Amino acid sequence: MKEPMNITEQLIKSHLVTGAMTPGTEIGLHIDHVLQQDATGTLVMLELQAMGLTEVRAEKAVQYVDHNLLQTDFKNADDHAFLQVAAQKMGYYYSRAGNGISHVVHMEQFGVPGKSLLGSDSHSCAGGGLGMLAIGTGGLDVAMAAAGEPYYVRMPKVLGVEVTGKLSDWVSAKDVVLEMLSRYDVKGAKGYIIEYYGEGLKNLSTWDRHVIANMGTEMGATSTVFPSDERTKEFLSQQGRAKDWVELKADEGATYDLTDHIDLSKVEPMIACPSSPGNVVPVSEVAGKAISQVVVGSSANPGYRDFWMVSQIVKDRQVPANISLDINPSSRQTIQTLTIDGAMGDLMGSGARFHQTGCMGCIGMGQAPASGKISLRTMPRNFPGRSGTKDDQVYLCSPETAAASAITGKITDPRSLKFDCPKFKEPKVVKSGLTVIFPPKKNDSKMDLEMGPNIKPIPKFGRLEPEFQLPVLLKMGDNISTDEILKAGAEVLPLRSNIPAISKYAYQALSKDFYKRAKLRREGHIVIAGENYAQGSSREHAALVPKYLGQKAVIAKSYARIGWQNLINFGIIPFEFEDSSDYHDIDENDVLLCTNLREAIQTDKPILIKNITINREIQVKTRLSERQVRVLLAGGMINDLKERADRSKLKGVKTKALAGA
Amino acid sequence: MKEPMNITEQLIKSHLVTGAMTPGTEIGLHIDHVLQQDATGTLVMLELQAMGLTEVRAEKAVQYVDHNLLQTDFKNADDHAFLQVAAQKMGYYYSRAGNGISHVVHMEQFGVPGKSLLGSDSHSCAGGGLGMLAIGTGGLDVAMAAAGEPYYVRMPKVLGVEVTGKLSDWVSAKDVVLEMLSRYDVKGAKGYIIEYYGEGLKNLSTWDRHVIANMGTEMGATSTVFPSDERTKEFLSQQGRAKDWVELKADEGATYDLTDHIDLSKVEPMIACPSSPGNVVPVSEVAGKAISQVVVGSSANPGYRDFWMVSQIVKDRQVPANISLDINPSSRQTIQTLTIDGAMGDLMGSGARFHQTGCMGCIGMGQAPASGKISLRTMPRNFPGRSGTKDDQVYLCSPETAAASAITGKITDPRSLKFDCPKFKEPKVVKSGLTVIFPPKKNDSKMDLEMGPNIKPIPKFGRLEPEFQLPVLLKMGDNISTDEILKAGAEVLPLRSNIPAISKYAYQALSKDFYKRAKLRREGHIVIAGENYAQGSSREHAALVPKYLGQKAVIAKSYARIGWQNLINFGIIPFEFEDSSDYHDIDENDVLLCTNLREAIQTDKPILIKNITINREIQVKTRLSERQVRVLLAGGMINDLKERADRSKLKGVKTKALAGA
Repeated sequence: MKEPMNITEQLIKSHLVTGAMTPGTEIGLHIDHVLQQDATGTLVMLELQAMGLTEVRAEKAVQYVDHNLLQTDFKNADDHAFLQVAAQKMGYYYSRAGNGISHVVHMEQFGVPGKSLLGSDSHSCAGGGLGMLAIGTGGLDVAMAAAGEPYYVRMPKVLGVEVTGKLSDWVSAKDVVLEMLSRYDVKGAKGYIIEYYGEGLKNLSTWDRHVIANMGTEMGATSTVFPSDERTKEFLSQQGRAKDWVELKADEGATYDLTDHIDLSKVEPMIACPSSPGNVVPVSEVAGKAISQVVVGSSANPGYRDFWMVSQIVKDRQVPANISLDINPSSRQTIQTLTIDGAMGDLMGSGARFHQTGCMGCIGMGQAPASGKISLRTMPRNFPGRSGTKDDQVYLCSPETAAASAITGKITDPRSLKFDCPKFKEPKVVKSGLTVIFPPKKNDSKMDLEMGPNIKPIPKFGRLEPEFQLPVLLKMGDNISTDEILKAGAEVLPLRSNIPAISKYAYQALSKDFYKRAKLRREGHIVIAGENYAQGSSREHAALVPKYLGQKAVIAKSYARIGWQNLINFGIIPFEFEDSSDYHDIDENDVLLCTNLREAIQTDKPILIKNITINREIQVKTRLSERQVRVLLAGGMINDLKERADRSKLKGVKTKALAGA
Repeated sequence: MKEPMNITEQLIKSHLVTGAMTPGTEIGLHIDHVLQQDATGTLVMLELQAMGLTEVRAEKAVQYVDHNLLQTDFKNADDHAFLQVAAQKMGYYYSRAGNGISHVVHMEQFGVPGKSLLGSDSHSCAGGGLGMLAIGTGGLDVAMAAAGEPYYVRMPKVLGVEVTGKLSDWVSAKDVVLEMLSRYDVKGAKGYIIEYYGEGLKNLSTWDRHVIANMGTEMGATSTVFPSDERTKEFLSQQGRAKDWVELKADEGATYDLTDHIDLSKVEPMIACPSSPGNVVPVSEVAGKAISQVVVGSSANPGYRDFWMVSQIVKDRQVPANISLDINPSSRQTIQTLTIDGAMGDLMGSGARFHQTGCMGCIGMGQAPASGKISLRTMPRNFPGRSGTKDDQVYLCSPETAAASAITGKITDPRSLKFDCPKFKEPKVVKSGLTVIFPPKKNDSKMDLEMGPNIKPIPKFGRLEPEFQLPVLLKMGDNISTDEILKAGAEVLPLRSNIPAISKYAYQALSKDFYKRAKLRREGHIVIAGENYAQGSSREHAALVPKYLGQKAVIAKSYARIGWQNLINFGIIPFEFEDSSDYHDIDENDVLLCTNLREAIQTDKPILIKNITINREIQVKTRLSERQVRVLLAGGMINDLKERADRSKLKGVKTKALAGA
């Protein structure tokens, strides 16, 4: 074991169950906290049910409801009822609709420095702001962790970012992470955990750190880690949980695989232009463009400070008639604190529009902007169409930039405002008089699950076949996001519990008739992609739905971490080109042949795939662990679990995850 | 002129432009205030544009945005942008999204006792709570009033309801109007304005009166009128508009066409059961039924008191995990007042879920309940499916009953709670520091309208044809609501500015393939209905869309007032059976023949329609004014206006409405 260790290494070491801490190799981590949101949680519950689990084994498991809040028909309300009963039956805490965004509420109510957290939401990494080892992943991984199994992930390298100095007026944590995105773009931190250290951290509150950790996933990082220090203690004390504090700091002399440096005093207001979080420029470069909407909220700017700052900038000023200033409070606590300290009144007086607490427009659940108009958001993502409006123009920025622009009606560098920057002081946090998060009901396994008519069981799949000869149904470019594979939004999100129904939307943003074409190809299909395939959200639907439609393999130049894991979990082989230029030798509708498939994925040798259409062979590879090979051979993780259970039964033992079955 | 006069007669007399005050005959009323909401307002603006109007002539015209607030794609945001520009261009006040429900904000900001108000929303009658002559109607009528033309309506009779006594603890204004509904059902007050009088009124605040006036439309009443007295003055003073107060009281010895009496002290908690506002029983009769949702808000319970009462009942208690307590604040002022006096904190602490201000679930814009579960609402309507969930079970009740049920998890008579009824005291109302309603910009007619891709011009139609021989495409029963003719809700409301697109939903609740069948019948069609056809909302789409699909006539036993007016406005003939039992002599798909149509509707003689399929003649009638005959002959009001304009041009004069063209 390497000594001295940085915080990331300490956290991994203290949770290591299997594997060695060699970057790039698979490790198994013990998971303390499990977090689910409703748009991914219904599948997790159905998966647990399929496994026969009657009680979660994680130290703390919480089911949040923050995504599907609009309820335009029975589906979302049915999902909430299902989740509430399932949560209590299985031993989860249940956080009702109206409590707020999972990452925010988890930090307020449950987060503990030094613990590991696995969440079925890609922004679960926000927990790193509190010194947790917090990772977002697909639902099936979370189900396994809830069942007490380790979480398997490639041992990351560590990118150490030294932070010095202090932020200038009008500049805040969001600008810091946007500055990072301007350096690393949407995949520059892939394979890394980003660890921030240095004397400048004392100038970043725990909520500031949440902002920075949250958007680490936008750079492709496995997670982001901060120390647990005096600022962390201050936060936990505010939340009435001082006893949960433990110190977390790098060993003297600890090193990093890669290092970088940010001088906070030099950070200026930054903005991500359409339509990628990595498309970052200084605000001054795009200042003056007319806007029509400003949305404040989401897990990317959830702290009370962020709302307060907006309230003080718009206070006694008027948001013009053609601008909608949408406020999405991040949690019940945020609403309560805004209420008693007058900030709510300041927002209301300026013309702001107050929405329910939750993710809202961040996942296209309402708040779609008008045609051809610019929307400025403090959110983490602006992938094409994610807002709900096709050809949208969504910019991502800090609360300061958002508020400045809301009163001027155009993109505005807040430093150009003619008044002093408001000075924030931490308020007394308001706690709900009664808990509104419901603790698990033990021994309540007899409760019947409430399966509304839109909630369908997980489809079953067979084992991996020995060969394929299949057409290429789609050829995609670089950085395809899960929003393009299977969009979120108010129309599609309510179908998350119904795989046959939601499958009609597969790849719709890229190919309108994909569903029809896939259904015609009963034998199955393959898709081709460029770099960083399946970036963005953790939604396992982006693998499960293609699988349901017959997808046997993807061949890409490279993959985003969670997307890659999800493909394997559902038995789709994630091939990579040995030589990226071979990407040009496969076109849509070409037919590809691969023989000896089951053997091929078990060796390290290059795998040959023949493009029958042009009679040319190309070499591909997988980068699978032994465990992943086993999963793929079985046809996915659920099958693998069942096979292991059957083998165990023969031997008279039970797998841990199936102990309750 | 009859003397002494009740208040209704005084109000009508002071606004009478044409006609005599003989009940049942058409009168023309001068309109002082015009009110539009966004789901009907886009058509009004398009109609004004089609008329070539450059500036409204009403004393006060206000465009509100309170319906289409979810923005699941570009359509609603486009509509808001269109309305904002159109309003300012044409001289309307513009009340932005986030300000609240039209009727509520109008009462707070603009309402003046003694003035007339015409609104393109059926609950515009709520203004009667303030002593206005406030009437809801179709958009084209409102467009005409905005253009300075009179509003034509049948002179109503007056139902005088004497109010005595004082409400008991746990009983409130909503129970009073539900008691009225238990007496009059959904059409018992048709042809009447309900006028409340008596010593008991001193015990009803202006907001209480708003509650009672608002739901007058549920009984089919043309409007509801209250005196303007000390309570009215108190309200206007609270709003900083004491100068707007004028006294309004019935002349000594005034009489009513019909009288009734309510002793407030005898009213008990009442509830409207699924799926009609007229299906009212005492709460005690249905107490104990398990519920899953409680929604507080809407124009039917908008007063600060109503939210405060809920907050005090749930304060320091917990809403169970399986109940969603949804709070829809009625206006920006309500939010601000709830914020500073602590009621918001009490609601939040109990687990309530705070939504944006507006109509929300009342028109199926989100908040759809779960399958097979009971939703309790303080709203005015529970027509089948209006909530967004098919086969819904929506109950309508008071805030007291709603809050009591929210904490027990089942329908609960609030009198059974084991604590004292909270005692309300009027708070200091919070006014926005800056106005968030934008005054008209004069001389701004050069602004280009912003027509998003979903905003389509009003379709054009021809003159009335001399005869028809057409199939009956649909035969309906009694009390068909506009929700069944053309539903609201998050899926369909965004199409309100696009008649071709929304037409696919015509009569969908009654006949799934109506649209297809209508499109196949290019020659046109007829529909048959029972009593009170087209009750409910004022949406003129329930006439315009059938017209667009080829509807030439309706034959019904009777009509709701607004629905009837809308049919005429768009050139569909609203026939009535001379003998109701003839309803049984027409079946779906029968072919009906009527010759000499243009002549027939110009006389008072019974009109013969031959059912060719069974070779039988039936007699029908119309009850049209001369003006309405002219409108029908022209093929609708827009054609009529153009014809009049053409005639005027020949004579060298301009109609008032076209003076700006």
